[in-house]
Amino acid sequence: MEQRLSLITLGVADLARSRDFYRQLGWQGQEVEHTVFFQAGGLAVVLWSRRSLAEDAGVEDRAAGGFAGVALAHNVRERAEVDHLMAAAQAGAVVTQPARDTSYGGYAGYFTDPDGHLWEIAWNPGFPIAADGTITVPDFGAP
Amino acid sequence: MEQRLSLITLGVADLARSRDFYRQLGWQGQEVEHTVFFQAGGLAVVLWSRRSLAEDAGVEDRAAGGFAGVALAHNVRERAEVDHLMAAAQAGAVVTQPARDTSYGGYAGYFTDPDGHLWEIAWNPGFPIAADGTITVPDFGAP
Repeated sequence: MEQRLSLITLGVADLARSRDFYRQLGWQGQEVEHTVFFQAGGLAVVLWSRRSLAEDAGVEDRAAGGFAGVALAHNVRERAEVDHLMAAAQAGAVVTQPARDTSYGGYAGYFTDPDGHLWEIAWNPGFPIAADGTITVPDFGAP
Repeated sequence: MEQRLSLITLGVADLARSRDFYRQLGWQGQEVEHTVFFQAGGLAVVLWSRRSLAEDAGVEDRAAGGFAGVALAHNVRERAEVDHLMAAAQAGAVVTQPARDTSYGGYAGYFTDPDGHLWEIAWNPGFPIAADGTITVPDFGAP
């Protein structure tokens, strides 16, 4: 298995509401067959009916909401961008963790999108961001 | 907000168990401070304590398990790779949807990792995969 991802699909309750939420953050996507595809670097972030996703995956959707155990992080290039983006996401978002200094010398906050999907906006000087937006895990010197 | 992701953090109950699960799939990571970082193309997939992630994000972790409303897809280059990877993931994984032909002319199946995180292994001839593993959302001609 090559060490990469291709798509992240977020199950949503109301496609238009979610599309508008990501649009207000500046993301442009394509809507086709009740699905929204955002090209996000070398992969795609996809919005699709939560019910359809559960059905497609063969899993039971017992209860929406609550902590899904997954966080999507968007790292920024400058510390000030964290406050800017946390403010930009206010409409439809719930700030669960206001931006604050982190143990690793960075600055980060979290919000949830309209379906409770967790996003972290982080400035982490230890994780270089290339011009094309890709990040590189630093060499921690771990065995 | 640039249209890209930096990290996907998966909250896990047992770091060693999860690390071994991804290792058997062929992924090599770095373990540092009770965290495993996998470089996955231009972003990082991170394994971290579910409790720590919930605490860091300022959310309550009421109930683990169940459908999180998120699926991570790994697209492959050849149809036969789907069966190969679905089989490779058997140890520790639960196949929720055996591989089958899809409505878009592809072939795909789903499994969950030891913490219930949902992975789709898909062959989708409509989504080109570059030599470096990045994918490009096709132009659907949508308005």
